[in-house]
Amino acid sequence: MCHTIRSILKQNTNLINQKLVVNGWVKHIRSNKLKKFVIINDGSTIRNLQIIVKNETRKLNRGTFLKVKGKIVLSKGKKQIIELLAKNIKIYGLFKEKDFQKTILQPKKHSFNKLRQQAYLRFRTNFFSSIMRVRHNVSYLIHKYFNKRGFYNIQTPIITNYDTEGYSKLFKVTTKYDFFGENAFLTVSGQLHGESAALGLGKIYTFGPTFRAENSNTPRHLAEFWMIEPEVAFFNLKHNMYLAEHFIKYIIKKIIKLSYDDLLFLDNKIFNNINLILNKEFKRITYSNAIKILSKNGYQIKWGKDLKSEHEKFLVENYFNSPIIIFDYPIDLKPFYMRINKDKKTVSAMDIIFPKIGEIIGGSQREERYKILLSQIKYFKLKKKDLEWYINTRKFGTVPHSGFGLGFDRLIQFITNMKNIREVIPFPRSPKNIYT
Amino acid sequence: MCHTIRSILKQNTNLINQKLVVNGWVKHIRSNKLKKFVIINDGSTIRNLQIIVKNETRKLNRGTFLKVKGKIVLSKGKKQIIELLAKNIKIYGLFKEKDFQKTILQPKKHSFNKLRQQAYLRFRTNFFSSIMRVRHNVSYLIHKYFNKRGFYNIQTPIITNYDTEGYSKLFKVTTKYDFFGENAFLTVSGQLHGESAALGLGKIYTFGPTFRAENSNTPRHLAEFWMIEPEVAFFNLKHNMYLAEHFIKYIIKKIIKLSYDDLLFLDNKIFNNINLILNKEFKRITYSNAIKILSKNGYQIKWGKDLKSEHEKFLVENYFNSPIIIFDYPIDLKPFYMRINKDKKTVSAMDIIFPKIGEIIGGSQREERYKILLSQIKYFKLKKKDLEWYINTRKFGTVPHSGFGLGFDRLIQFITNMKNIREVIPFPRSPKNIYT
Repeated sequence: MCHTIRSILKQNTNLINQKLVVNGWVKHIRSNKLKKFVIINDGSTIRNLQIIVKNETRKLNRGTFLKVKGKIVLSKGKKQIIELLAKNIKIYGLFKEKDFQKTILQPKKHSFNKLRQQAYLRFRTNFFSSIMRVRHNVSYLIHKYFNKRGFYNIQTPIITNYDTEGYSKLFKVTTKYDFFGENAFLTVSGQLHGESAALGLGKIYTFGPTFRAENSNTPRHLAEFWMIEPEVAFFNLKHNMYLAEHFIKYIIKKIIKLSYDDLLFLDNKIFNNINLILNKEFKRITYSNAIKILSKNGYQIKWGKDLKSEHEKFLVENYFNSPIIIFDYPIDLKPFYMRINKDKKTVSAMDIIFPKIGEIIGGSQREERYKILLSQIKYFKLKKKDLEWYINTRKFGTVPHSGFGLGFDRLIQFITNMKNIREVIPFPRSPKNIYT
Repeated sequence: MCHTIRSILKQNTNLINQKLVVNGWVKHIRSNKLKKFVIINDGSTIRNLQIIVKNETRKLNRGTFLKVKGKIVLSKGKKQIIELLAKNIKIYGLFKEKDFQKTILQPKKHSFNKLRQQAYLRFRTNFFSSIMRVRHNVSYLIHKYFNKRGFYNIQTPIITNYDTEGYSKLFKVTTKYDFFGENAFLTVSGQLHGESAALGLGKIYTFGPTFRAENSNTPRHLAEFWMIEPEVAFFNLKHNMYLAEHFIKYIIKKIIKLSYDDLLFLDNKIFNNINLILNKEFKRITYSNAIKILSKNGYQIKWGKDLKSEHEKFLVENYFNSPIIIFDYPIDLKPFYMRINKDKKTVSAMDIIFPKIGEIIGGSQREERYKILLSQIKYFKLKKKDLEWYINTRKFGTVPHSGFGLGFDRLIQFITNMKNIREVIPFPRSPKNIYT
């Protein structure tokens, strides 16, 4: 196989005088009377390779894919240390300059919106290929983290017959004939199924797509997004908070090193954001205390009401100046499956709130007590029949367990400091938007 | 955090006299006048830990979850080297013996069908927890393989507006109001989107759920299954075959070591199956030659017809006695996007056929030539408008590229030697089956 530009630039001067083959497409060309200076990229890295071409009479339009045989030499230019002296070039299908002008590949400032309209070409822009490489590295780090710690990755079902969150609007799944024999929906969370897996395998995590048919055309919402949901048997809320903080700090710490070039290219302010997370111990605070602090500081909010983003912002950015974990929320603010506390007013829920982006993780200890779970299902007026299998996981041997959910795309959005979440997923799905 | 049984048994006698805490549920109990011998498991391994409990008057029903504090000692029994001498036991929610009898946890031979009816409890059976651990390890190996080789993992969309395969029956996605403003379906493959990503990032792979609404109630079909689809720019069919063979051999070679205990427990014949794959170089043969061989050996099959499983079986198990890669199939047998060969009758397609299970991988070099792709779309009577973005990836700079698809669940089915694919996925989806 051929060398990638990433591996060539990594080996750097060790490759001097080495003959090799490299593939890529033309990003930029300039020429003088004697030779052409062709800048190529192959997607393996944000950095480019300069090719020196003598006696080339064929057209080498921008955007064209090339295979180049040649020799690595020291560059006389100031912008690079090594370059490739081409001996032989194969040109793949010509890209007409006239067509090039029509695309987002033309090197000028395009709006993010314009870039999204040619989503299938975005992968060849510096900006989006950087984000995709960061996204891959984060994904891999997530698998690595859990694998090393004995968590098993479980593929929970995408098509389900029940709506976990209760409040969510669902996508319905149909066929011409009655395929499933009952209503079928796209999952909003793998949690309930993940719980049953954790009760057998101990520690599990899901990493898959979830769906919300909410008509939210905001920079933070997608109709289709990927979630990571770990679930651990024998864990209480404290363990859960520890895991969540440790996990997210691990990812953020490692990604700085692994994707340094790409993050630097995207926005050097990224490192400031990231350091805000790494250098602080996440402050733990009960919902009730959060309400007290807010009231003392002039906010009109009563116990039992949902915190708004202005409240979270005040707590994180002004009061604590640190990421915070708010826990023990009022029963009515959270789903039926969360464990009721001794006060009988709150549940063992936790939300991690980050500066700028707000909630990044939501989790809880689960209600493992059979009778209390039953009464919660009644209280929330849910259909017991649809949840029977879930209730049975408490009837047939039960144990405290906990878990949380992290929106993968929101995490990438935070790391890359993108304003709109649609900039961090290959083909965003949102109201009236399903093109490509 | 606590020790897992896996880590305890791995450290073995190194832990003698060590005090520790372990969690698990009761698999088996026997007792004499002085003490109870309690076998517990925690899902981390197929192997169990024996707990010795003195002076325990409380009921310790099977299936009950426990937290045990104690000391590791040498076992006097013959079945284990070390055991845990319990000092203190915490019993979580009692599991009534009467209820236990109703579940698949009762240690007797249950039909696979019965096990599936309590899918939410299957994770606690030896058989299914073994499969889930193998599944996790294979999944992790897949990510590891591609990551190491510079492939980027891409999340292609689940909800799409187009049907790749043409022939497939689709699940339709709807909401009460018109969310997307056009028809929306569940994806049958991430390939077309993956191709556009490979043209920017060089080497990519997808690993996500795909869907078929075919009314196939067979041991090899699922309505919802996970696919791995690598795609590589600059790769021709030969490179593609090499990658596919190397990849699948890597996974199989590594999983033997990584999941040895679980595979041994499941079926010791597994290792024979697996060695059949590892010890042979996959035989490459054109479709046309396959037809010739079949005709000479008494099969009535004409050039242009699809190979049936009996044909594949003969070639793999009788004629070649090796996995085979059949390539260069007639145009009409394959989808529109495959590259037309010089003979203008065949396309650069490849199928890898394994003993017993038949096709495990299907792939091709893609048609990268703009005009030929257009004529193929016309020939197959596809809607050009829906494919415009895909066609544009050939208009705006084009290059040869190739890729393949591997059904993740089929791979697990092959490795674990399960007759029915529903035994290898947590919550199988098939006609009339969406429970839990």
